[in-house]
Amino acid sequence: MPRALLTDAEIDMALAGLAGWQKHTDKPAIDKSFRFKNFVEAFGFMTKVALLAEKLDHHPEWSNVYRTVDITLTTHDSGGVTSLDVTLATQIEALLT
Amino acid sequence: MPRALLTDAEIDMALAGLAGWQKHTDKPAIDKSFRFKNFVEAFGFMTKVALLAEKLDHHPEWSNVYRTVDITLTTHDSGGVTSLDVTLATQIEALLT
Repeated sequence: MPRALLTDAEIDMALAGLAGWQKHTDKPAIDKSFRFKNFVEAFGFMTKVALLAEKLDHHPEWSNVYRTVDITLTTHDSGGVTSLDVTLATQIEALLT
Repeated sequence: MPRALLTDAEIDMALAGLAGWQKHTDKPAIDKSFRFKNFVEAFGFMTKVALLAEKLDHHPEWSNVYRTVDITLTTHDSGGVTSLDVTLATQIEALLT
C-alpha cells in the first residue's frame, strides 16, 4: 500500500523545521537549492545524499550545475509528499550541520 | 581567451561519432539521456563522470531521477559548444564501452 500523503498543514509543519526547503511550485513535492564552494564540494555532498537515498530506498530528483545542487523530493508511489520525503530532507540537512 | 565555438558543421561531424548525443533543442549545447539498471548503477556512472569533469575542469549540467541521467554539455565561457564539450562527451562514452 502506498505511504499516506501528508496534508498541507502537515507539510507546512515539517517545512518549519527544514531551513530553506519549500513546496515545489509546479508539483506536489518539496525542494531546496544548495550552493557550495565549488564542484568538488557539490559532488561530495551529492555522494553523501546518494548513500542516504539508497539506504532509505527513496531517491531524489536532482540536478547539478557546477557548485549548485537542486533537490526535489516527492513520493512517486503515493503521488505527493509523504513522511519519507521529510525523513530524507531531514537526513540531508543533518549532513550540513 | 574563450575557446573557439564549433561551427554547426563541426558539431554535426562530432555528433556523428557520439552515439545518442544530439544538439540541445533550446540552447547551444549537446545532450544525451542515459538509462541504467537502477540508482546504484546510475550514480556510479555519475561518480565516474564527475571525476572526468573535474580533471578536465569542464563540468556538465546534469540531472538524475532514479535510473536516468540526463547530461547537457556547453562551454559557458564561450557561449556554446566547443572542442571541450566533444572531449568530455567522448570520455563519457568511453566509460560505457
